[in-house]
Amino acid sequence: MALIVQKYGGTSVGDLDRIRNVAKRVVRTRDAGNDVVVILSAMSGVTDQLISMAGNICGTPDCREMDVLLATGEQTTVSLMAMTLQAMGYKARSMLGHQAEILTDSSYNRARIQEIGARRIRDLLGQGNIVVVAGFQGVDAQGDITTLGRGGSDTSAVAVAAALNADQCEIYTDVDGIYTADPNICAKARKLSRIAYDEMLEMASLGAKVLQIRSVEFAKKYNVPLHVRSSFNEEEGTMVVHEDANMEKVVVSGVTHNKNEARITLRKVPDKPGIASKILAPIAEAGIGVDMIIQNTRLSHMTDLTFTVPKSDFGAAMEIEKKVAGEIGAEEVLGDEDIAKVSVIGVGMRSHSGVASKMFATLSAENINILMISTSEIRISCVIEEKYTELAVRALHTAFALDNE
Amino acid sequence: MALIVQKYGGTSVGDLDRIRNVAKRVVRTRDAGNDVVVILSAMSGVTDQLISMAGNICGTPDCREMDVLLATGEQTTVSLMAMTLQAMGYKARSMLGHQAEILTDSSYNRARIQEIGARRIRDLLGQGNIVVVAGFQGVDAQGDITTLGRGGSDTSAVAVAAALNADQCEIYTDVDGIYTADPNICAKARKLSRIAYDEMLEMASLGAKVLQIRSVEFAKKYNVPLHVRSSFNEEEGTMVVHEDANMEKVVVSGVTHNKNEARITLRKVPDKPGIASKILAPIAEAGIGVDMIIQNTRLSHMTDLTFTVPKSDFGAAMEIEKKVAGEIGAEEVLGDEDIAKVSVIGVGMRSHSGVASKMFATLSAENINILMISTSEIRISCVIEEKYTELAVRALHTAFALDNE
Repeated sequence: MALIVQKYGGTSVGDLDRIRNVAKRVVRTRDAGNDVVVILSAMSGVTDQLISMAGNICGTPDCREMDVLLATGEQTTVSLMAMTLQAMGYKARSMLGHQAEILTDSSYNRARIQEIGARRIRDLLGQGNIVVVAGFQGVDAQGDITTLGRGGSDTSAVAVAAALNADQCEIYTDVDGIYTADPNICAKARKLSRIAYDEMLEMASLGAKVLQIRSVEFAKKYNVPLHVRSSFNEEEGTMVVHEDANMEKVVVSGVTHNKNEARITLRKVPDKPGIASKILAPIAEAGIGVDMIIQNTRLSHMTDLTFTVPKSDFGAAMEIEKKVAGEIGAEEVLGDEDIAKVSVIGVGMRSHSGVASKMFATLSAENINILMISTSEIRISCVIEEKYTELAVRALHTAFALDNE
Repeated sequence: MALIVQKYGGTSVGDLDRIRNVAKRVVRTRDAGNDVVVILSAMSGVTDQLISMAGNICGTPDCREMDVLLATGEQTTVSLMAMTLQAMGYKARSMLGHQAEILTDSSYNRARIQEIGARRIRDLLGQGNIVVVAGFQGVDAQGDITTLGRGGSDTSAVAVAAALNADQCEIYTDVDGIYTADPNICAKARKLSRIAYDEMLEMASLGAKVLQIRSVEFAKKYNVPLHVRSSFNEEEGTMVVHEDANMEKVVVSGVTHNKNEARITLRKVPDKPGIASKILAPIAEAGIGVDMIIQNTRLSHMTDLTFTVPKSDFGAAMEIEKKVAGEIGAEEVLGDEDIAKVSVIGVGMRSHSGVASKMFATLSAENINILMISTSEIRISCVIEEKYTELAVRALHTAFALDNE
């Protein structure tokens, strides 16, 4: 008898019929002799509706109250699911974030899980229940409701699986696994049967939207095997696991792209020690995340500094830098929203050389100009003009022998 | 500076515009220098929608899960209200049932409040907040969500007012006070400026649907002055308070009617000790409340026993009694759903005689046959044929000099 944690996203529980279908899947796992904990998101669209309702009250609703509002979404689905399971003749109980003791910090709207008590989940499992836990929500030290940010239910699921020492954590979603590239723009993309946590982390942070990045960090840290699969069919999906020797034979596992960044350049900045900090500290203070940073030294003690920010923060970041430019004596501030980042990812890079040069050559052969480059141990990313995104992804997919034959 | 508890019903918070209007009223009270605690129901219709959604899953959804589902209604309104108050420049915080420590027993769907901690409400008031508390919901000793039954937000409001030792508890609703009779059937009904708790208790239990009966019991027990008024205008409503000498001068304060009961008669029951218990115990065991009971002794050790039950439980009660009749040797079971109960109520009855005979004479003058009679210290009720309800109410209203001139 295994303990299986299953997480179903908003599309999978989008209406009562879909909830019934999910329930059937849950009880099949139960009937096979397993203990089952189910983590649910809100019905698809509900969270957006609630955000829009709050937006009609004021532009930036209070974060704490927003979380109280948003938490109703998952509360609805877990109670409906528990009722559905009971109607099918199974013992079932819903658990909200505070009841499941999903303790977080007090960063409303994007709280981080600090600890999971899970005592009641364990008790309820012991009494023969299927336990249905509200994803996305937690509780802080004051007893206030917090939410974990977009995709937070993935993290709830992995954290609960870790706390319960579950045998597997199945993430059911509306795609049937992790692909070598986005199938919407790369027809030859293949589903991966296995992928390493580290690869998944790079993919998630680069915009492959299947899993919330923190859920993968949690899974890696607590060694929770993840199975990403579709709730609409019976096919095996993709296992996200620790890397093994087999994975390392493959140089590149996938090609990702991200159109959600913009870049900002401060030109002719007097090149003094501490100048990068003067430019970037106000961005960090405004809560804006910086991804890539490049500094080119010019002649005569001048430098150019370029960095990327999320497109949604571009306007705010430009405002900040125009002010900074005045203070530090930079010549001008340039902004560009029409960029994209394409990346190749693979744990095999650790033991293979020549990946970067092959990537640059491939883009060059398509006459795609590289605007910025960044690398990690298992990833190479190039910023290019946005209009070349699809071309670049397809060319790299072919060049690294990922195409589905 | 006073501490005012204001409760707004579902119609008053039915959409964002109405929530804004309620918020304006709240801040007027705040601006006048008062501490304000606001108790809210779910938006009108939402609770029914949720019940119907659950009904699509199964006929009798699990009570515990039902309460988890229903509690989302108030959670939504309190967060929206707190945001609205903040958008108007006021400090505000929402509190759910478990956060406000509204501790109840575990009778899901109709839990009873056992204790209110209210520590956090007090803290938040001390920090200058308007505190917006979810009505209708509480939490049991296991930390599970409970709800207080239809109209439970009234009881939440009074209980919070009692716990905080508030100066007044204002119940805002879609009627503008307590009337001498239902204005829908009695055009000459008048709004009462004051009514005694005991009168209100009799009225509420008899079907005047303005206040949940338990809220009045709470208010009486903890001496919380209630002000029942409309959220759609500025008029004074009706104060519900301890009775005073002035009230006693009025013999009858109001005429109520109730069409939601049905009566059941067991004919020719062998008249042995314990027979009433044999007939009524199974009804109580089925959770059905019995209102009036009448036993007529016949000749030759036979008796007829008649009682009334809520119309919604009539079918179930008839089933039970048909079985009982066979066991105890009763001749037949008769059921009648076409009945109504009309009552006259007034604390003045304590010191005035002749009210009953005047009531009977008035009905008789209209050729209305009395089927059953029951009385309390401050009430006389007659069961009549349902079709005479309106006629009876109007005739009694005139007879007891309640008509609006």
